[in-house]
Amino acid sequence: MIQTPPDPSPAAADGAGIDPIAALSDELARQIAARRFDVLKRRLRTGEIADVAEAIDRLNDEQEAIAFRLLDRERASEVFEHLSFDAQEHLLHTLSDADAAAVLEEMSADDRTALLEELPGKVTVRLLNLLSVEERARAVQLLGYPEDSIGRLMTPDYVRVKPGWTVAQALAHVRLYGDDSETLNVLYVTGPGGVLVDDLRIRQLLTVDPETRIEALMDRVFVALNVNDDEETAVAQFRRHDRSALPVVDGSGVLVGIVTVDDVLDVQEREATEDIQMLGGVQALDDPYLQVPILTMVRKRGTWLVILLFGGMLTAEAMAFYEDELASAVVLAIFLPLIIASGGNSGSQAATLITRALALGEVKLSDWWRVMRRELASGLLLGLVLGLLGSARIAVWAVAFGAYGEHWPLVALTVGVSLVGVVLWGSLSGSLLPLLLKRLGADPATSSAPFIATIVDVTGIIIFFTIATLILSGTLL
Amino acid sequence: MIQTPPDPSPAAADGAGIDPIAALSDELARQIAARRFDVLKRRLRTGEIADVAEAIDRLNDEQEAIAFRLLDRERASEVFEHLSFDAQEHLLHTLSDADAAAVLEEMSADDRTALLEELPGKVTVRLLNLLSVEERARAVQLLGYPEDSIGRLMTPDYVRVKPGWTVAQALAHVRLYGDDSETLNVLYVTGPGGVLVDDLRIRQLLTVDPETRIEALMDRVFVALNVNDDEETAVAQFRRHDRSALPVVDGSGVLVGIVTVDDVLDVQEREATEDIQMLGGVQALDDPYLQVPILTMVRKRGTWLVILLFGGMLTAEAMAFYEDELASAVVLAIFLPLIIASGGNSGSQAATLITRALALGEVKLSDWWRVMRRELASGLLLGLVLGLLGSARIAVWAVAFGAYGEHWPLVALTVGVSLVGVVLWGSLSGSLLPLLLKRLGADPATSSAPFIATIVDVTGIIIFFTIATLILSGTLL
Repeated sequence: MIQTPPDPSPAAADGAGIDPIAALSDELARQIAARRFDVLKRRLRTGEIADVAEAIDRLNDEQEAIAFRLLDRERASEVFEHLSFDAQEHLLHTLSDADAAAVLEEMSADDRTALLEELPGKVTVRLLNLLSVEERARAVQLLGYPEDSIGRLMTPDYVRVKPGWTVAQALAHVRLYGDDSETLNVLYVTGPGGVLVDDLRIRQLLTVDPETRIEALMDRVFVALNVNDDEETAVAQFRRHDRSALPVVDGSGVLVGIVTVDDVLDVQEREATEDIQMLGGVQALDDPYLQVPILTMVRKRGTWLVILLFGGMLTAEAMAFYEDELASAVVLAIFLPLIIASGGNSGSQAATLITRALALGEVKLSDWWRVMRRELASGLLLGLVLGLLGSARIAVWAVAFGAYGEHWPLVALTVGVSLVGVVLWGSLSGSLLPLLLKRLGADPATSSAPFIATIVDVTGIIIFFTIATLILSGTLL
Repeated sequence: MIQTPPDPSPAAADGAGIDPIAALSDELARQIAARRFDVLKRRLRTGEIADVAEAIDRLNDEQEAIAFRLLDRERASEVFEHLSFDAQEHLLHTLSDADAAAVLEEMSADDRTALLEELPGKVTVRLLNLLSVEERARAVQLLGYPEDSIGRLMTPDYVRVKPGWTVAQALAHVRLYGDDSETLNVLYVTGPGGVLVDDLRIRQLLTVDPETRIEALMDRVFVALNVNDDEETAVAQFRRHDRSALPVVDGSGVLVGIVTVDDVLDVQEREATEDIQMLGGVQALDDPYLQVPILTMVRKRGTWLVILLFGGMLTAEAMAFYEDELASAVVLAIFLPLIIASGGNSGSQAATLITRALALGEVKLSDWWRVMRRELASGLLLGLVLGLLGSARIAVWAVAFGAYGEHWPLVALTVGVSLVGVVLWGSLSGSLLPLLLKRLGADPATSSAPFIATIVDVTGIIIFFTIATLILSGTLL
């Protein structure tokens, strides 16, 4: 909920149902159409950066370019950082080289890295050449880190202080140089060679006598990220230590940059989205759903669907193997989808729970035996519940409607025992497959729900017909 | 990666494969066994709070209580905030009333709210009575907010400054009162009646002449959360505005507390876990997997499995309806699991993508027509790919192994067309059901993958046999 000062402009109207961003966007469009550029310039000076950026994002390409050029230079890069990638790409095409260079120079190093790594190679090279020598060196260095590494998330703009300074001297230093720093919530104490020695939260400097030495505030205990680690580790560390920024060091402990918590919120959401999509049996989309080109969508979904289809062809093999039993007792076919679906559902549940628990570190590989015991117990209980319900359903239909012939009690028994079997098997395989994949060094989320369901389908058919043969030979079979 | 000063204690050994927390935990256990309490007291004074807390968490109940009592009072509440809920609950049982009161008084208000809302009612009442009058009033007020609301996440500890002050005066105020504030990264400017007027990031005060008036720094534009909103809205706002804390106001715009970003990281993860579990067809577990009691697990999973079983019984009805066709053409039964599984897989994919897109705001209800067009296109293309592969499979088996009898081309056609039908139908229903649920005011994540799969199973059977009847009557049927 955005608070804006009382203001005659309709953009400030905060009535129920009015989307303030849409209102602002409409207002900008109107001013552009009326060519009231002075009014527009003034309007763009106020408001939260993120809101102005989103309002500009909603304009069409032509309006976007006009509005952006009217931003004050200082605000321009901040707004640019918050634009969608599409808008950024488009603006970089239409801005003059000088304007594009100005925006890129001012951008936070980490946001610039994110932009440059998404652009096509040729565009990236062209843009790098627009930067000053110093900024280009920084940009290139950051791009040199592995994709999805902490190096790509960090920015080299932070404030360093020396242990021998007083707090007053440190704050004076901050006053002079603080504007260039990504954050002033944390300051970093470095030693010879730039090795990180300690971090200090700004509150430690603000709540003591200004003549206190920095040394006296240090406890030499700090948490640092490693520049080559995967960005996922950053999420875990931020969650444990309640910080708004964490330092990044290289292999020798030299401070090379910092990661701020806003980037981590984005990483956490991205990671969750990837996990969700993989569990659902889709290769991670990497873009908002409505923006993914149809053919890309078909490729990413088709890959898995085809793999699963081949898995499904094994069910046809299994069914063909039991063709005679099917021919003799068509009543078995009637309950087959029910049984294998129950196994698949149970497997999906288990796979989902274990994969998520692995991702959150709640379950480790060494816990596999505990997991198996729990799934044996749960699977058995769940199977019993479903088996009883399934058998009851057959009994009711047989008694009420005379369905399923004279051997219906045996059919009910077959279905009941099969349900216990497939649900138990589904729980076990659904929980152990992610662990096995992780053990083999693969991503446990590859054990998607549909994949488990396919495995349980094939084995469920075998379980069902084996039990049916045991119980019904001599009668229906 | 934790950096600790060079130190003879094995807990500092940072070799490959050594878990520093486990090492610390073992060290604590050893000191407790050897009754070296002085050494232990000193050891507990160093190290990151989160790490000490986790090490203590790994001790058994008795060791936990001993270690905790040896913590310096100041550190004790901070460590307590980071303990797992189980450890917190256990310690509150074993600590004397005086010690428990001391810890609770010092805790951050939001962490205390989180603890009290989890405890059984009687325990909560007992603990509230241990608090001072003032803290009890604050605790009760926070607990008075709706569950999962922003009121439950916030803390009333922040620094307020007045517009008429100079920066120097504001920093002097911070020096005196800042220790009690949850964060000093943001300061809040309030007007008459405590109404929030502006927020100032600490960097704005640190980078200007100390004689500047607060007023001059204000732009009167800020983002505030509403105390009764759902905690999910906090996640969205933090992600948009790159802040480490956001103010919370009530209906009249009066500042009532702040939410810090560490809580939001937790909320984001919790929300993602809930969505993942619901998509997988499980009621949200709310606790780490290994800590959920077996019977609770069975209840939460069983509820959905039973519902899906009843849905599955509809497949039995559908199959019974086509019993004659099944009896005449057993070859149809062979491909049935394959076909309905493909439909279910396609539906799972679509449901997963749309549900996540809805949760992230990438897709809105008004986008339903765009979604449907995309799913029609994707579903058709995917169905064609699968249909061709499925038919090809039958053709190859028929030609190579003489399977499926003389009418195999018609069988292949039936299976191929059915695959197109169920995949298309799966994509459409999988994507539209979450939208429909949201339209009806329900949680779209209820349209779990297994639920969609069940719907597509039933309708897939009907589609399959209808197509079979059309193509194969007169031959196999």
